Amino acid sequence: MIRVTVWNEYVHEREYEGIRKVYPKGIHGCIAEFLETNEDIRVQCVTLDMPNQGLSEELLRDTDVLIWWSHARQEEITDENVRLVQEHVFAGMGLIALHSAHFSKVMKTLLGTTMTLSWRDGDREKLWCTAPWHPIAKDVPACIDILQEEMYGEFFDIPKPDDVIFTGWFAGGEVFRSGCTFTRGYGKIFYFQPGHEEYPIYHMPEIQKIITNAVRWAMPLRRLQAVPECRHITGTE
Amino acid sequence: MIRVTVWNEYVHEREYEGIRKVYPKGIHGCIAEFLETNEDIRVQCVTLDMPNQGLSEELLRDTDVLIWWSHARQEEITDENVRLVQEHVFAGMGLIALHSAHFSKVMKTLLGTTMTLSWRDGDREKLWCTAPWHPIAKDVPACIDILQEEMYGEFFDIPKPDDVIFTGWFAGGEVFRSGCTFTRGYGKIFYFQPGHEEYPIYHMPEIQKIITNAVRWAMPLRRLQAVPECRHITGTE
Amino acid sequence: MIRVTVWNEYVHEREYEGIRKVYPKGIHGCIAEFLETNEDIRVQCVTLDMPNQGLSEELLRDTDVLIWWSHARQEEITDENVRLVQEHVFAGMGLIALHSAHFSKVMKTLLGTTMTLSWRDGDREKLWCTAPWHPIAKDVPACIDILQEEMYGEFFDIPKPDDVIFTGWFAGGEVFRSGCTFTRGYGKIFYFQPGHEEYPIYHMPEIQKIITNAVRWAMPLRRLQAVPECRHITGTE
Amino acid sequence: MIRVTVWNEYVHEREYEGIRKVYPKGIHGCIAEFLETNEDIRVQCVTLDMPNQGLSEELLRDTDVLIWWSHARQEEITDENVRLVQEHVFAGMGLIALHSAHFSKVMKTLLGTTMTLSWRDGDREKLWCTAPWHPIAKDVPACIDILQEEMYGEFFDIPKPDDVIFTGWFAGGEVFRSGCTFTRGYGKIFYFQPGHEEYPIYHMPEIQKIITNAVRWAMPLRRLQAVPECRHITGTE
Repeated sequence: MIRVTVWNEYVHEREYEGIRKVYPKGIHGCIAEFLETNEDIRVQCVTLDMPNQGLSEELLRDTDVLIWWSHARQEEITDENVRLVQEHVFAGMGLIALHSAHFSKVMKTLLGTTMTLSWRDGDREKLWCTAPWHPIAKDVPACIDILQEEMYGEFFDIPKPDDVIFTGWFAGGEVFRSGCTFTRGYGKIFYFQPGHEEYPIYHMPEIQKIITNAVRWAMPLRRLQAVPECRHITGTE
Repeated sequence: MIRVTVWNEYVHEREYEGIRKVYPKGIHGCIAEFLETNEDIRVQCVTLDMPNQGLSEELLRDTDVLIWWSHARQEEITDENVRLVQEHVFAGMGLIALHSAHFSKVMKTLLGTTMTLSWRDGDREKLWCTAPWHPIAKDVPACIDILQEEMYGEFFDIPKPDDVIFTGWFAGGEVFRSGCTFTRGYGKIFYFQPGHEEYPIYHMPEIQKIITNAVRWAMPLRRLQAVPECRHITGTE
Repeated sequence: MIRVTVWNEYVHEREYEGIRKVYPKGIHGCIAEFLETNEDIRVQCVTLDMPNQGLSEELLRDTDVLIWWSHARQEEITDENVRLVQEHVFAGMGLIALHSAHFSKVMKTLLGTTMTLSWRDGDREKLWCTAPWHPIAKDVPACIDILQEEMYGEFFDIPKPDDVIFTGWFAGGEVFRSGCTFTRGYGKIFYFQPGHEEYPIYHMPEIQKIITNAVRWAMPLRRLQAVPECRHITGTE
Repeated sequence: MIRVTVWNEYVHEREYEGIRKVYPKGIHGCIAEFLETNEDIRVQCVTLDMPNQGLSEELLRDTDVLIWWSHARQEEITDENVRLVQEHVFAGMGLIALHSAHFSKVMKTLLGTTMTLSWRDGDREKLWCTAPWHPIAKDVPACIDILQEEMYGEFFDIPKPDDVIFTGWFAGGEVFRSGCTFTRGYGKIFYFQPGHEEYPIYHMPEIQKIITNAVRWAMPLRRLQAVPECRHITGTE
C-alpha cells in the first residue's frame, strides 16, 4: 500500500467561479479521486487553510509520497514547514511537485536554484516523451496533446535533472523540460509542469497515468527514521 | 593553434543545382571559411571521393578536432575508417557531428545506440539554449530562429548526453535535443542537429558561433599516443 | 515472472580443478540456483560450447534479462551474436555483465569505449554503496567485505554511468566503480565487477542479493518487437 | 585576469601551535601564494573575524571565483551572507569549497542535501583520477598519495555530481567522492575533499595544480548583473 498525501493550496478553486467549475472538489480532490482507483494507493488531502498549514511531523511520517500544488500563496509556507518536508525527503519520502510549485519554497530549498523560467497565459502544449524507458513513462503515449495550458519556457534554472522524461512544445514557440526527476538524500522528486488551474488538465487520462506512475516510482525503497548525521569512525571499518 | 579537419561527404552539393547555389564551395568550404576567420584555428578539408575516403592515420594524428557531415553515402565508410576515427576519439581527438551524421557509422559506433529519430522535410526550427552556462553556449542568444530546416524529432535514441545544450522547437509540433555533448575515452563529442543541405544554415552567424565554440571546447586537453590497454599491476601501487 | 538467461563461457570451471571446486555446476549453475529461490524468477543457462555459442533469436526473444559472464574466450563471440544481443538490448532486454565481461565484445559495442582498466591478481575488496536509494541497493549493507577478489582499478574507461551504485576499495591501494548502470535504447544495463572465478564470490548472500535486485531492476517495462527505425513524418503530428 | 577571493575561517591556525606551524600565514595565505605564481590569477583574502564576516556585495561583485575553507565556526555565518554567496553563484561566480566546507551553510544551501559523511582522524589517502579528460585533471597524475589526511567516507549525501573527478582511497578501508563538480544557475562549483588543517596538504604541488585548474575551470563565461527572475512573455517569441 502506498500512502499518498496531496497538499493543495486550494485558493484559486474557491476564489474563481470558472476554476471551481473545473475542479469542484479542488485540485486535490481530483487527484485523490483518480489515484484511489488504484488498489495499491491510499490518499489523504490537506490544504493551506488547515491548522499548521496542513502539515505535521505525524502526517509526513505516515506519508510515502507527497504531492504538492501551490501558487498564489506559496510564500506563506513557514520555514519550519519547509524544513519538515525537506527532512522527510532526505529520509526517503517521495515528492511530486506540480506546475507552479516549481517556485515553492520547498522546491527552491531542495534543488538549490532560482527555479526561474518564462511563462505566458494560455497556449497549447504537446508533451513529448524523451525517456520512454523510464518507469514514469510506462504505457504513456509518445506525445500528449494538451489543448490549453499555460506556457512555461526555457531557460528553466534547475540543477541538471537525473532524467528529463517529458519535454514540452508550446504553440507560441517555446520548449520546456516539463517532466524531470531529482534525488535528494534517500528521497525521489518528480517535477511535472502540466496543470494550470484554469484548464481540466488533471482530468486527462494520460496525465493521470503519468502522476500514478510517478507515485509508484517515488515510493521509498528505504525510509530512514531520522535525517542522517555525520558518523565519527574511531576504529577501522 | 587548433587543427581542425572538416570531413564532408560532398555529394548533394555536386548533384543538385539548388544545393550548389547554397554551398558553392561545398558545406566543408563554408565551414572552413568561417572557422578560419579565427586566428587560433587552422582548417583542412577532406571529402569522400579522395583516396581512402579522405581519411588516414597521419591526417587524424594531426587533427585536434574532426568535424563530420555525411548523409546519402555514409554507409560506404569502411569499417577500417570507422575504427580509425573511433580510436583517435578514444585517444582524445574532438569530434563534431553535424545534422544527418547522427546516423553515420562513426556516431553509431561511438555512442552504441540506434540513433533513430523522426524527421520531416521542411519546417521552421527555434533553437533554445537549455545550458547557457556551457562553453558551447558562450555569447549565443537564448533562442535562434532557423526559418527553414529539416525537422528532427524525439524520441531520439541516444545514450543520456553529458549536457543538452540546445533543444529544438519545430513549427510542425516536435521537439528535439538538437545540441548534445558526450565523452568517449579522452575525446569530447558534440552532436549538433542544424544544417540540412538545402538551406543556408551554416551561413548564419549564430550557428557559426556555436560551431566555433564547439571547436574550442572539443580541443583535447590530453592526447594519448595510442588507444589505452588494460594495465596489469603486479606490485602494490 | 521474470525470464532470466545466464550465458556463461564455462571454460575455467572445466579446465582448473580449483575453480571446479568453487563452482562445481559452473558459475551459471550457481547463479541460476540462487536466483531460482525467488518465485518471480525463472532461469535457463547456456554456454559457449553449445550450438551457435548458446545464442539464438528465439532464446533472446524469450529472455527478459540476460546475465553474461565471459573471460578467456570472449573474442570468439561472433559479430552476428554481438549484434543479436545488442539489438535485443535496444528493444528492451535487460543485461547484467559480470566481472571480466566488461571486456566482452558485447559490452564494448554497447558502451562504445575501450573498457580498459588496471588489474592485479588477488586482493581484498570492500564494496561501498554510493547510491543507497537505488533499487539495486535495496536491503544491501553499506559495505560488503570480499576477502579475496581480483583487483580492478581506475581509470576505468567507460562512458559516464547513469548511476555508480557501488565503489570498490582494494587493499592494495586502488578504487573502482564496481557497480554501474547504463541505458541503451529501451534496455537497462548493469555492470558489476565482483566475481573472479577462483573465489566463491557468487556464493556470498550479499552479492546474490545485489544480482537479484539487478534482475528485477533490469526487467523491461516495455519491449519493442523490433529495433527502432527512423520515422518519416509527412504531415503534422 | 581571474579575480579569486579566498575566504578562510582562520580559527585553527591561530588556536593551535602545531597548525600554525603548518600554515604560518593561514590556509588562505598558503593558497593565495601558490595561486599568485600564475600571471592570470589575482588573489585577495578575507577571514571570518573581519567586518561582516569578511563578505560584502562589493567584494563578491569583483570576485570571479570564491574559494571557501571553514570548519569550527561555520554555523556562525549569517543567513544574509549565505544568501549573498548563493546569489552570486546563481549569477555566475565560481565556488571552490574545500575539505570541511562540505558542511558549511553555503554548500548545504546550494546543493540542497545534508552533506553528511563518515570521518576518522588521521589516515592515508590515495586520490585517484576518475575523469582524466576533465579540465580540472589537466596535467594531474593518475594517483596522488597524501600520506596524512583526515578520512572522509561514503555514503556522502550529495546530489548526483556533474562529474566525479577524483575518488579517494583511505588506508583504513573507505572510499570517497573527493572531487566533484556541480552547476547552480550560471555558477560552477567544485568540492574538493583534501585539506585537513593539521597536515601540509595545500603545500603539495599536485594539490596546488588541482586547485589552480579548478580556478580556471570555475571562471564564469557569463556573469549576470542580477539573480534571474521569472519572465512574463505576453506576445509570441
